[in-house]
Amino acid sequence: MPNDSHDAPPELDELRTRLATVHDLRAASAVLGWDQMTYLPAQGGAARGRQLATLSQVAHEKFTDDRVGSLLEALRPYADAVGPEHPDAALIRVAHRDWDHARRVPADFLAAFTEHTSTSYQAWATARPANDFAAIAPILEKTVEMSRQYAGYFPHTTHVADPLVDAAEPGLGVADVRALFSALRSRLVPLVRAATDQPRPDDTCLTRHYPEDAQWRFSEMVATRLGYDFSRGRQDRAPHPFTTSFSRDDVRITTRLSADDLRFGLFATMHEAGHGMYEQGIAPALDGTLLGSGASSGIHESQSRLWENLVGRSRDFWEWGYPLLQAEFPDQLSDVPLDTFHRAINRVEPSLIRVEADELTYNLHIMMRFDFELALLDGSMRVRDLPEAWRTRFVEDLGIAPPDDRNGCMQDVHWFAGPVGGAFQGYTIGNVLAAQLYERAVKDLPSIPGAITRGEFGELLGWLHTRLHALGRKHDVHETVHRSTGASLTIEPYMAYLHGKFGALYGV
Amino acid sequence: MPNDSHDAPPELDELRTRLATVHDLRAASAVLGWDQMTYLPAQGGAARGRQLATLSQVAHEKFTDDRVGSLLEALRPYADAVGPEHPDAALIRVAHRDWDHARRVPADFLAAFTEHTSTSYQAWATARPANDFAAIAPILEKTVEMSRQYAGYFPHTTHVADPLVDAAEPGLGVADVRALFSALRSRLVPLVRAATDQPRPDDTCLTRHYPEDAQWRFSEMVATRLGYDFSRGRQDRAPHPFTTSFSRDDVRITTRLSADDLRFGLFATMHEAGHGMYEQGIAPALDGTLLGSGASSGIHESQSRLWENLVGRSRDFWEWGYPLLQAEFPDQLSDVPLDTFHRAINRVEPSLIRVEADELTYNLHIMMRFDFELALLDGSMRVRDLPEAWRTRFVEDLGIAPPDDRNGCMQDVHWFAGPVGGAFQGYTIGNVLAAQLYERAVKDLPSIPGAITRGEFGELLGWLHTRLHALGRKHDVHETVHRSTGASLTIEPYMAYLHGKFGALYGV
Repeated sequence: MPNDSHDAPPELDELRTRLATVHDLRAASAVLGWDQMTYLPAQGGAARGRQLATLSQVAHEKFTDDRVGSLLEALRPYADAVGPEHPDAALIRVAHRDWDHARRVPADFLAAFTEHTSTSYQAWATARPANDFAAIAPILEKTVEMSRQYAGYFPHTTHVADPLVDAAEPGLGVADVRALFSALRSRLVPLVRAATDQPRPDDTCLTRHYPEDAQWRFSEMVATRLGYDFSRGRQDRAPHPFTTSFSRDDVRITTRLSADDLRFGLFATMHEAGHGMYEQGIAPALDGTLLGSGASSGIHESQSRLWENLVGRSRDFWEWGYPLLQAEFPDQLSDVPLDTFHRAINRVEPSLIRVEADELTYNLHIMMRFDFELALLDGSMRVRDLPEAWRTRFVEDLGIAPPDDRNGCMQDVHWFAGPVGGAFQGYTIGNVLAAQLYERAVKDLPSIPGAITRGEFGELLGWLHTRLHALGRKHDVHETVHRSTGASLTIEPYMAYLHGKFGALYGV
Repeated sequence: MPNDSHDAPPELDELRTRLATVHDLRAASAVLGWDQMTYLPAQGGAARGRQLATLSQVAHEKFTDDRVGSLLEALRPYADAVGPEHPDAALIRVAHRDWDHARRVPADFLAAFTEHTSTSYQAWATARPANDFAAIAPILEKTVEMSRQYAGYFPHTTHVADPLVDAAEPGLGVADVRALFSALRSRLVPLVRAATDQPRPDDTCLTRHYPEDAQWRFSEMVATRLGYDFSRGRQDRAPHPFTTSFSRDDVRITTRLSADDLRFGLFATMHEAGHGMYEQGIAPALDGTLLGSGASSGIHESQSRLWENLVGRSRDFWEWGYPLLQAEFPDQLSDVPLDTFHRAINRVEPSLIRVEADELTYNLHIMMRFDFELALLDGSMRVRDLPEAWRTRFVEDLGIAPPDDRNGCMQDVHWFAGPVGGAFQGYTIGNVLAAQLYERAVKDLPSIPGAITRGEFGELLGWLHTRLHALGRKHDVHETVHRSTGASLTIEPYMAYLHGKFGALYGV
């Protein structure tokens, strides 16, 4: 139990005030970033770039101030005295971690890296459509070199990529992720093979004409029903859907729609609503502080995947949702039985593009990227060998080969707009953790699946709010997973879920 | 001519960098303000308030830094050497003015005043619909007292309100505005009387049902045609239309629409497009600096009024525009002749509410407010006497009396959300200057009126860009008016315009 008998020293108030300023500056950056992706006029980009650079620089300068360090130092005895469970101790602990992190990277290196990634992004935007890997290769080489240099500012135990993984997943290192992924891959590849040996379900019902305004209406109805609170958020269109939070009372989601494919908009909304409900569920006391957001990339992804896949692609969900979807789109769906629809949205098929991959093959896309990142960083693979390695691994894992680099190793923006290392593993950690959380939630509240068939999601959301969301960034990944599931991160619930679901669908 | 033979000292670069940071922080505030008025979720207000307060505080702190003062001091000889026409001298001059202004007001007074106006706004939002002047009177008394105190931090020559007028209209004082207004009022009151003695034109054609999406389309077509550049801006809905600029390449307008009154949306868009084209026309070299926005409230208002009234309510404009409007709304307007429409949009009628007043009576609303502000500040009128004074003056100037205070002295937000003094005169200065600018533009380019009848506005906009917009905030009001019109501010062109227009319409 928190020990409340210690009076907070005056340094705590000053620390809170300083951190609140940094937080508000970052929130302002997030508003400008949201606007950039949704409503920015065609020619507004240059000024917006300057404004974002200034906000980020002022926030960095205020956060890395020596005074913040001496306040943290002065508060150490207080944090020890109240004990690690006390909210003040959590704030001091995480602030110390973040401050140390921010201080280690020299400002001029950071500026040079930002400039380089901006150049890289521009080059990629031209080179990818032209399928010109040779043009981007020297830039990617420099990115790898700078990523290595960046990692070098941090202590790491074993692998050069440890700090990059830790930055995205506090407390996790390369060894943790490798262990998880190697177990997962050995069991996933045979399952994918077995499923793809079966006849493919017919999914043509999803590519009929679906008017966008009706899709929009339906997706907002679903998001509302799941529990995303539109009085504390909103949905807008964006070319690449994302979620952003300016406070737990202003968490915004975005989506994209295609009139010719029902999947894009519907599942993007459920995915982003999952991220959104996480941020909306942070404990009010943490709002406006360093602790007031999700705990890691992977844990965030667990929430989007849980609602998109475990709920949104389940038979239970569509028991409730399908009659409503048919009522919204009678011309398109009245002749399509629920089973056909359910099989269509769960069709498994080896494919080239990560973001279009099905639930089963998706992780194979992630795991190869993670392995390539490590190999590039530790020098066991050269950038020029990436295209060939990509093709070989695709054949090995998925039985197909990309016809070109634009649909191969150049498809994702990540390595061309940020560091190489730590960018991808969160997606699969999210899938794994989603199943573990869901299994635990149903164990605690066995009525959840039945409620889902009636379109009632409050019990599940309430459990997630209480067990996970409320924690914010108070703890590292290990601790957060432990507190919410009562166990360490494990692939068993995920494998059980996949076998159960795809076993039933594909008889494998 | 600028003297370029002097090398800029290194202090100039540092000054520019520091001012650019301040500018970007203010631009970020403007983005957050725009979002607050357009897309903020219902519960997002509290967090947004905190974020805006932080941005404003950090910008203030960076701007009022001692170092900025010593840089300005060090740059004084350079500014003198290059001469007042040099762009660097303009930057140093205006920065010095703004810096001095910002330094004079103690931070704790500013915080107390901000808190008080926020309380006042909340109280007004309740008291106005309840018509409860007694509830708001003590709060307004304190606002008057604090406005006086605020003014006291600045040197002023004659009237306590001089600094408040100067803050809105750099270089102008109470005496300037009084002289202008007293001449204007003595000639306006008889003209209003004469016009309102005539039968009222029929304006029922404007209050038919006009679907909002068609209004939106038409208003964006008109704004584009006038010259508002949508690639460097956008239009959104807002309860109270406004224009905001984050850079000359991102200047946004807002509008409100009523399906039952064509006037609201159409003229709001032209009005805001006028403000918008001003900001879009600032010289590129001034963008991102302290000089990169409009020169004063009144000069800004001259641009909105010029496009809304001198262009948008002219017979010439509708020669071109009316067939297009009829084509958009055939059911509503095909039986309405152009003359009827033109008389309807120029209907003169004494009315209670400023924002709904016609072009002719509008200035009487402004001038009484200005007089009341001065009387409240110099102590010649008490707050409790305001309602009665308001009624008396209304009868005197407009021949009608407000039935209650909610439609009388409590109607405008200005005195209840900011200082008393300096809030209103800009609207009438804008009307006066609009006519003076337009007269000069037509003198320089006599083909302008003919071009307007063909829906061609490029010559007029080009003249305004060159003569006025490009100047930004380089000069004070006197100098800006002189450079753009070749003369001092005068009511003669405005009176000539009013007599010409309303003489023709009303035979007066």
